Amino acid sequence: MNNQPIGIFDSGVGGLTVASAVMEVMPREEIIYFGDTARVPYGTKSAETVTRFSRQIIRFLLSKNVKVIIAACNTVSAVSLKQLRKDFDIPIFGVVEPGVDSALAATKNNKVGIIGTAATIKSGAYENIMHEKNGNIEVFSQACPLFVPLAEEGWEDTLVSKLTAEKYLEPLVEKGIDSLVLGCTHYPLLYNCIKSVAGENIELVNPAKATAQCVYDYLISKNELNEEDKIKEHKFYVSDMTDKLDIICKKTLKNDFPLEKIDIERY
Amino acid sequence: MNNQPIGIFDSGVGGLTVASAVMEVMPREEIIYFGDTARVPYGTKSAETVTRFSRQIIRFLLSKNVKVIIAACNTVSAVSLKQLRKDFDIPIFGVVEPGVDSALAATKNNKVGIIGTAATIKSGAYENIMHEKNGNIEVFSQACPLFVPLAEEGWEDTLVSKLTAEKYLEPLVEKGIDSLVLGCTHYPLLYNCIKSVAGENIELVNPAKATAQCVYDYLISKNELNEEDKIKEHKFYVSDMTDKLDIICKKTLKNDFPLEKIDIERY
Repeated sequence: MNNQPIGIFDSGVGGLTVASAVMEVMPREEIIYFGDTARVPYGTKSAETVTRFSRQIIRFLLSKNVKVIIAACNTVSAVSLKQLRKDFDIPIFGVVEPGVDSALAATKNNKVGIIGTAATIKSGAYENIMHEKNGNIEVFSQACPLFVPLAEEGWEDTLVSKLTAEKYLEPLVEKGIDSLVLGCTHYPLLYNCIKSVAGENIELVNPAKATAQCVYDYLISKNELNEEDKIKEHKFYVSDMTDKLDIICKKTLKNDFPLEKIDIERY
Repeated sequence: MNNQPIGIFDSGVGGLTVASAVMEVMPREEIIYFGDTARVPYGTKSAETVTRFSRQIIRFLLSKNVKVIIAACNTVSAVSLKQLRKDFDIPIFGVVEPGVDSALAATKNNKVGIIGTAATIKSGAYENIMHEKNGNIEVFSQACPLFVPLAEEGWEDTLVSKLTAEKYLEPLVEKGIDSLVLGCTHYPLLYNCIKSVAGENIELVNPAKATAQCVYDYLISKNELNEEDKIKEHKFYVSDMTDKLDIICKKTLKNDFPLEKIDIERY
């Protein structure tokens, strides 16, 4: 067994949905979380910049003695993961591959939709991995840049969100998809709105849980699960202490955790 | 006379509207522009982080031997300007004070509206300066976090933008304002949409031109205007080379300028 913590990072607070899934699937694991709230969002930035920011974060997490790292950010997973795995020895998990596996398990007609940030969609990462695993799958993708600010504005139940979702999703619905990957950790916050446009016949796939399961399987296979039965001291770091951060954390994690600000540019 | 360039910076490309106004008002001045496209937006971040980023940028501009600096970003002008003026010897101009002067010149009933990012509105900077200059002014302000992503999505003529503008602006219109400050450099891109909701009786105030005029007055007073009559070699730097950057530059500046990427975190 191995009682070192699990490192999880995201461009901001969206990755807390993955942290929450890790806590549920592996309640004995300790978590070191980093959210890059000073430089959020990543989805509009170039692959080179996203990779550079991710390297700094991984160096920070390594300084905290983590045993594995989860890039709980679709953009990082889509555009930087291959390079990061070359750069560092530690096992690094992304959310794209587990998301693909969940979508392949969910679809019955082999028509899958993907929604995400501009960078994630432009990378073609979901599409490529899906085709590697199943050559018969038809993939339809759509960047939805307004979903993150709508979620952060708390407008999930407004007509503006409904019309925005229609504009983004109707072309996918018309293609006859039967499953839709929420390829950005913020999107589950708009679940009801997206579901109302997608309709009953389209299953919404959230990669967070599948990612936690994937890390669990790995740790089991390496005999590295933490078996200590004591109260966990999860730690949450951010690069900027912005408004409402504690509220969002509490809402996502169903608990109060202290947040600490660090200067990520030093790593 | 002084032929050193003028430094202009913004969190991204919005400040190009100010650069464009500077070119118009002072056609003989050379411009060094920096847009922090790797860390944009600033409007959702803390004052401390915005000030830290601004210090790095000012150090970069000083390395380019500029004679004055324009913080062509409402968030920086609103939350960091006082501190930056303490930290550096060079004259630093913001967009808030010229925006206030324009609004005071425009209003006839002394009821002024301000729209901007969350950070700008929360700072109360427009309101405070306006009250210092005229104790009889009533100021009504509203943060509009969705306007920047709507402008960047190119959705200025959609029903989504119309409904969003209604949601943000109707409370201000109901207060009877007769002038409205566009307190974010992106907002002029939504001019028609904002105007259609504000109506004919509300004058929209764009601080960009007043800012350029303010810098012109300063340089005249110091006898530091550039009088050289040669073709100007403006230089545009960014911290990330993202998609569509050259298109936005060309659209705003009505000309092609080469963009160079630099690592701002080193400054």
